[in-house]
This record gives sequence, C-alpha cells and structure tokens, in this order.
Amino acid sequence: MVLLSGGLDSTTCLAYAKKQGFDVYAISFSYGQRHTHELDCARKIAQHFGVIQHQIVEIDLRTFGGSALTSDMEVPKGRTTSEMENEIPITYVPARNTIFLSYALALAEVKSAKDIFIGVNAVDYSGYPDCRPEYIEAFQKMANLATKAGVTEAQELTIHTPLIDLKKSEIIRMGMNLGVDYGMTSTCYDPNEKGQACGQCDACILRLKGFEEAGSKDNAPYAN
Amino acid sequence: MVLLSGGLDSTTCLAYAKKQGFDVYAISFSYGQRHTHELDCARKIAQHFGVIQHQIVEIDLRTFGGSALTSDMEVPKGRTTSEMENEIPITYVPARNTIFLSYALALAEVKSAKDIFIGVNAVDYSGYPDCRPEYIEAFQKMANLATKAGVTEAQELTIHTPLIDLKKSEIIRMGMNLGVDYGMTSTCYDPNEKGQACGQCDACILRLKGFEEAGSKDNAPYAN
Repeated sequence: MVLLSGGLDSTTCLAYAKKQGFDVYAISFSYGQRHTHELDCARKIAQHFGVIQHQIVEIDLRTFGGSALTSDMEVPKGRTTSEMENEIPITYVPARNTIFLSYALALAEVKSAKDIFIGVNAVDYSGYPDCRPEYIEAFQKMANLATKAGVTEAQELTIHTPLIDLKKSEIIRMGMNLGVDYGMTSTCYDPNEKGQACGQCDACILRLKGFEEAGSKDNAPYAN
Repeated sequence: MVLLSGGLDSTTCLAYAKKQGFDVYAISFSYGQRHTHELDCARKIAQHFGVIQHQIVEIDLRTFGGSALTSDMEVPKGRTTSEMENEIPITYVPARNTIFLSYALALAEVKSAKDIFIGVNAVDYSGYPDCRPEYIEAFQKMANLATKAGVTEAQELTIHTPLIDLKKSEIIRMGMNLGVDYGMTSTCYDPNEKGQACGQCDACILRLKGFEEAGSKDNAPYAN
C-alpha cells in the first residue's frame, strides 16, 4: 500500500516499492486542495507503474480550515530555506499524515496488505511534526494494536519510510537510478491552470534546490 | 472534543465530559451507514447538551467494503453474548476508531482542544481490537507526536475513555446518575424506517442485557 500524492517523494517511494518486488496498491487523497493537478499526476503515475489498484479517497479537510493548502490563506512565496526552518509552515494541514495513514491502514487491512509505504522525509520536512521517525514508529505501534492483525498477531504491519533520512537531492538521485521520470510529478503548492509550477513557493524552492544539488535538470513544467 | 455516534456509550461519555466541566465540541461521522437515524439522534443529543459546535464529517468507508455496517452483508441476529465473544464481528469496520480519532485529533488541533473523549469499552467490546486500553494508549502517544503540540510541547493531548472498564449495566447506571435520557439514543445495527430498534442484533442484545442488569427499563423505541 503506497501513499501517492503525485509529488516527487511519493513517486520515488512507489518506484522503490516496485523495485523491492512488492505488488502495489496506491492510495491518493482528494482533500479540497486548491488544485487537482496533483491528483491527475497521481493517476498517470499509478498507471505508469502498473499498480493493482489506485484508490482515490475523498476527504474534506476544509472542514477543519487552518491551512493555506485548504483555505484562502496566501501561499508564501520566495522564502529562503533558512526562513522555512524551525517553523511549522502555514501550509501544514492538521493531522494530515495521521488521517492519510489511517485510511491506508483500513485499506491495507481489507486487501490483506502488511506493508505501507509513505514518502515522508525528516530532512527537508520544514517543520512538519508528522514526518519525524518517532511519529512513524508510534503510528506503526498503534496500527498493530488497531486492527484484526493486532489481535491475532497473524501478521505484523510495517510502515516503510525509505526516504526519511535522505536529502531532496539524494531522493532525486535514488529516483533517477530507479528510472523515475520526474516530469510526471507535481510538487508546487500553487500551480497555474496549465499545471505549470510557480517556482517560488516553499515546495518549488526545495525541489529546485534538490535538482541543482543532484546536478540534474528538472523536466517538470514551470510557468517561467 | 467528544466523539458522538448518537449511541448509548458516546452519549454517556458526553454527559460525563459536561459534568467534569469541559466546554464540549462534538464530532460525528457520516460513513455510509445503512441508516442515518443514529446521526439524527446525535444532532438532537448535541443540541440537548448545548455543545459549542457539532461537526459532522462525511467519510466514505464504503470505499473499503468488508463490513456489514457499510456493505450488503447480513447483520447477524439473535446471537447469545457468548457467541459474540472471542470473535471479531463482521460488523467490524476496518480501522474505524483510528480514522475517527484522527479526524478528532485534527479538529482538536484547530480548536486548541487538548482533551478527546471516546466512549470505547473493553468489557462488552465483542472483539473490536480498537477498543482496548493498549490501543488507546498507543494512539495517544502517536497523537502527541503528530501535531504542532508534539513539537512545541506547549500542550499535551489526552484521550479520555471514562467507560473503558465498565460493564454495559454500569455505563447505564452512570448515565442515569448524570441525567441521561436514553430514549434519545440509538444503538441498533438495523433499525427500521421509523428509527425503531430491531431488538435482535448484537448491539440491541448487549443493550437490553445492560438495562436488565442495571434494573432499569430502556425507553428507546423498539419494533416489537
């Protein structure tokens, strides 16, 4: 079970799971984002990698407000990476990974999958608390108590985070070695109608910096 | 933040939280149940107790199938309580409490609430793995790592389970002491169109046995 946003990290994670020999189910979330471009990318990527099933779950995080990705707050532009550090960004969605992993857990149980892959990253995580290794470990422990598996102990569920210790540039190198076409992926918090990235939001800045450090060119479409 | 299904346990839990002096937000879930009667009860109960806000979150657990409460499987009728024991019922919804608590966590963060109340019960839980104390403890630990609170340590989130060690009859006595009108609550897995309980599903059987043991009469409407 791979959580697939259609972004750079989750796509690399999916390629990694396939390479490890897993039969992959992908799960994506439609959660009142400003844009659906990311989901279109996720659909194409899932198809490209030949997943068994790609489930898109509709959830309405707008109910909770409180985030630039789901409400009308402005997405910050042109920040330096040091400005992003030591601060929880306003693009933080409350308990997002917890909600996403909970759905993945439910679907994993139904499909008898015992491995969940999530492309979280503690290095370039810009202050998201639910990207830290100790959080993932705690979720895994809870998950193993939450489900039938927890009662029968017939199977142990594992949350795999292959990218958690990698810098963005290392993720990109890993993906390139796995043959990922990053032109298929979408990272921008604020793409235009053509699906072109803005190049100036935190996500774009981290992505472009990653490609620069990896010595590669990003072949995703940018507005300028 | 009180998880309110409109059933006997969650209503008792809400009454308990009010009595403890908490200002209460209630959260309910519309998740493709066969019936919406339970949600109607939840609305009335929330209003009766004067909660600050009652949030109903739409989630589509039918996506996952695999349960009599969300798909077309038959609800078992007329089972004895010993038949219910040592078995995970087919009415089990995959990872349900995990998904519900995740949303409650998100809403708690937005509202700066640091107490979540859930009416789970490990005595009459009929094999639901996500009603056990060790599960709740693991969720709480994870929750405290998942959110801004986990980073700043400014507030510690607590999952309260005031009913976890109580028998159904003890919950009913507790609720009666708190002035709960159980006629407002709905427990049945398979009520008719008038909202009358069937009296024969596992939930009805446990409820009626609870009232009998508590020496009380259930004033909720039954079909016969």
